Amino acid sequence: MTTTTAHSEGHPAADPGTASPCGYSLPLSPSGKASMLTPPPWHFSGEILMVDYRVDPDAARRFLPPGLGPGADPGAAAAVFATWQWCSEDGGELADPAVCRFSEFLILLSCAFEGRPMARCPFAWVDEPVPMMRGWVQGMPKQFGAIHHTRPVAVGRAGSRLAPGGRFDGALSVHGRRLVEASVTIEHSTERAPALHDVPLAHSLVFPQWVQSDAPPRTRLVASQVSGVEFSRIWSGPGQLSFLDGPVEDFGLLSPLEVSAGHVFAYGETLHGGRLLRES
Amino acid sequence: MTTTTAHSEGHPAADPGTASPCGYSLPLSPSGKASMLTPPPWHFSGEILMVDYRVDPDAARRFLPPGLGPGADPGAAAAVFATWQWCSEDGGELADPAVCRFSEFLILLSCAFEGRPMARCPFAWVDEPVPMMRGWVQGMPKQFGAIHHTRPVAVGRAGSRLAPGGRFDGALSVHGRRLVEASVTIEHSTERAPALHDVPLAHSLVFPQWVQSDAPPRTRLVASQVSGVEFSRIWSGPGQLSFLDGPVEDFGLLSPLEVSAGHVFAYGETLHGGRLLRES
Amino acid sequence: MTTTTAHSEGHPAADPGTASPCGYSLPLSPSGKASMLTPPPWHFSGEILMVDYRVDPDAARRFLPPGLGPGADPGAAAAVFATWQWCSEDGGELADPAVCRFSEFLILLSCAFEGRPMARCPFAWVDEPVPMMRGWVQGMPKQFGAIHHTRPVAVGRAGSRLAPGGRFDGALSVHGRRLVEASVTIEHSTERAPALHDVPLAHSLVFPQWVQSDAPPRTRLVASQVSGVEFSRIWSGPGQLSFLDGPVEDFGLLSPLEVSAGHVFAYGETLHGGRLLRES
Amino acid sequence: MTTTTAHSEGHPAADPGTASPCGYSLPLSPSGKASMLTPPPWHFSGEILMVDYRVDPDAARRFLPPGLGPGADPGAAAAVFATWQWCSEDGGELADPAVCRFSEFLILLSCAFEGRPMARCPFAWVDEPVPMMRGWVQGMPKQFGAIHHTRPVAVGRAGSRLAPGGRFDGALSVHGRRLVEASVTIEHSTERAPALHDVPLAHSLVFPQWVQSDAPPRTRLVASQVSGVEFSRIWSGPGQLSFLDGPVEDFGLLSPLEVSAGHVFAYGETLHGGRLLRES
Repeated sequence: MTTTTAHSEGHPAADPGTASPCGYSLPLSPSGKASMLTPPPWHFSGEILMVDYRVDPDAARRFLPPGLGPGADPGAAAAVFATWQWCSEDGGELADPAVCRFSEFLILLSCAFEGRPMARCPFAWVDEPVPMMRGWVQGMPKQFGAIHHTRPVAVGRAGSRLAPGGRFDGALSVHGRRLVEASVTIEHSTERAPALHDVPLAHSLVFPQWVQSDAPPRTRLVASQVSGVEFSRIWSGPGQLSFLDGPVEDFGLLSPLEVSAGHVFAYGETLHGGRLLRES
Repeated sequence: MTTTTAHSEGHPAADPGTASPCGYSLPLSPSGKASMLTPPPWHFSGEILMVDYRVDPDAARRFLPPGLGPGADPGAAAAVFATWQWCSEDGGELADPAVCRFSEFLILLSCAFEGRPMARCPFAWVDEPVPMMRGWVQGMPKQFGAIHHTRPVAVGRAGSRLAPGGRFDGALSVHGRRLVEASVTIEHSTERAPALHDVPLAHSLVFPQWVQSDAPPRTRLVASQVSGVEFSRIWSGPGQLSFLDGPVEDFGLLSPLEVSAGHVFAYGETLHGGRLLRES
Repeated sequence: MTTTTAHSEGHPAADPGTASPCGYSLPLSPSGKASMLTPPPWHFSGEILMVDYRVDPDAARRFLPPGLGPGADPGAAAAVFATWQWCSEDGGELADPAVCRFSEFLILLSCAFEGRPMARCPFAWVDEPVPMMRGWVQGMPKQFGAIHHTRPVAVGRAGSRLAPGGRFDGALSVHGRRLVEASVTIEHSTERAPALHDVPLAHSLVFPQWVQSDAPPRTRLVASQVSGVEFSRIWSGPGQLSFLDGPVEDFGLLSPLEVSAGHVFAYGETLHGGRLLRES
Repeated sequence: MTTTTAHSEGHPAADPGTASPCGYSLPLSPSGKASMLTPPPWHFSGEILMVDYRVDPDAARRFLPPGLGPGADPGAAAAVFATWQWCSEDGGELADPAVCRFSEFLILLSCAFEGRPMARCPFAWVDEPVPMMRGWVQGMPKQFGAIHHTRPVAVGRAGSRLAPGGRFDGALSVHGRRLVEASVTIEHSTERAPALHDVPLAHSLVFPQWVQSDAPPRTRLVASQVSGVEFSRIWSGPGQLSFLDGPVEDFGLLSPLEVSAGHVFAYGETLHGGRLLRES
């Protein structure tokens, strides 16, 4: 897995007076190190609160781009709250805790590409700018929101243990308006990963055109390539999920028709890049 | 343990047309329920990163109010990063994860009251308004800051396990300026609680006077009354701690002269109110 | 106008080894300069968006403490959005723009003390901690919120001029939930200050008790003492105001029954302290 | 000026069951209205604090991509603080003040394209996600920061009038660390726009590649196309500018060697899209 950079850190330009500014992303700079983003791979370790639910299968289908079909379980969906630590290959970001943590909320829809089960993420929100921008590099539609979820506690009385009867809540607000509320009361644990959290994500690489052009914008369907997937034990039980009236257009199309199990677990992965599925 | 409220929720005023607005704190309102703060007890469950260090004993003494002496170990101090869940007696806040979590940084100085070991908190910062205001109710000098610390991870590569070699970092910024950076590399675990986290806190109840008065402002030295103290296993190892130049007056007086062990652990307590130690 | 401080900056303690930590407010420190708050007077210059409206007079009365009556116009109310610059007597804060600015939303109710027209502020929100804490010093029930309002523009097309037809909007969110939306379309200008912005504020000095005590908590009704009041020209026209369902108890009691004029203007004042009206 | 969208709002897909999700940007959705960004034109009205300064001309040259030369005044630079209102063509965003305002800090370097004076923006920070993402659409390297600047006041004592002797300050913090501080004391006013604020911006359209490819990434040099440029009267006087040690790589290369005049003014423009200058 390699990444294209105008010139690498290991090979500084011979003549700094004439070299071009460079970097994996904007901002470009003489050394390339001012880049807002580091190149993949990126490691992630997260604490997850997830609620499985069902949407109108027709509504779900309208969010699937050409190439993706509804798969074996049309209408299966999930709402996922996560708090992540992340770092680049060298782990450097872990030394600055103001940089290496963020929270995320996303919706997953069950789908399939050429018969292979996958998940489509029609909406996602994070609370830090680097993960937002990195989402767009992948084709993942991350916006900015306020994401909160309670976490299991080991001692004291301000929260639930990771044990039967424990209750965990999540909430998403966007532009000062509450959009999603969720809750899980765990009953038992298992080693079986929740279905929609255990399939590849299929994203659409598309970015607004800025210069006038006769060519239509290119959209590429890509699958995220991950390694090192690890799940903790999965605690599950009845879930609750509500979508509130809010300012996000089309979001209500994916409102829960039925809510089933919720899950609390830890999850780790390393994200390497994207594999082209289809170009249109 | 009872708390004084103008009228309790259980006893609504007989005549709403003439009753006074009430509440445990501002804002006062007809039902008393608009109060920003709920009355104690308050439960806390937290994840802690703590670094023991030494300050100039003379500087520490200058932060101790009348009644508190330097105790058996003058100059012993600690820097503490914490992320808390909290709730009131009925646990209601846990259902709104946007409300029941906050992060905190504080300094502790070793001291004694009438020979009993205690800790004095000369500086504290939190990132939510309710805990800030609740700090002042207790005499704890909480201000607003940006507090971040890395957390142990159970899976994945973006962080350390709670195991020998694991490294955890903390950072405090105030008004957009980095003030404190800390790090702990854990080596072993113990059941012995860090000394300064296992003694009562002695705060000064003092609040600015607003109405002109001949009487000097009253300062009361109080000890926080807690119950249900619980520690997880304590992971410890070499610590690092730096104070950076910043805008907080007198903070540099408490800079580290020597840094010893750091600790990572979970902690729970219930806070009930204050016990008067001395009035001046 | 003087302010009580344990020892003033001009009179440092003779023996720093034995002096008590001091300050206008917490945190107390050797020099007294670590105090989160500076003593009054405080200067304020603000840009204001205000909507006059009417509440149920009975509901308004239930928010008035003993000593305040409904006055000549029971049910008159106002919703006020403001963005302030502030500084202490020496103006020092103006050199740090990260410190000297904040936004505020508040409700005003018409009332009277011994026949003199005054305003009561039952709810207020700000977006910075220093003004929040300073509110409580005055008896003003400031909490934390997200306050936004559009401002007149002098050039360009992204906003309205301060001229007939100009429209200005305000919004308040609390804990990620939209609570208030307001709008004013200005039609004409005047030199007559809006009634509720031109009378003294009557606050209740009350603070939660921390130490058990037989004595009931003391509540003092105080009037804010201001000087140097300045209004710009007042631009007025039809207003709109909506209260949305939100998490703030008793707030809905003050929902608009009728909305009249809105106003856009600049306002300055200096706040010196409080005058005792009544003790109970 | 038109903008390419998969299907426009005015032409909904005939068969919603088979149409592709669409939008000007991610997120794609059935109606296309969930798009985080609206298509240009975008209107901007801003309040500006700007300081002209000089950098090492060699350092500046190292930030210029192929096609841009140092121009007639190598080493001329400016630091710009701005608070903007913005809206799309229909002005809809102005009705939500939580959406239509943001602050920005940016550096401008004097340069030239084929002999025409232009400005290059090597670094920029904003405090809202929509302007950040819109920056990348244009090739403008916007990151996230905390930007504050004092504003002229019309009444009251908490700030300066727009008049000789008035002082205005700006500050930028990134990841909790202060990076830039600036100040202007105005002495006189003029109608002559500051040179670096009155030339087109030349940006580099470049976005990280996600899918492995043999083709090198394409970089396009583009000029922003604006109309409706309006300046208020320009107030100018001696400026101050400091770069503090911070976490932004290569930023220090553009530290001030010499600081000249500062300016306070209002500015409006409409941004339509980009014109291709050169492809490499």
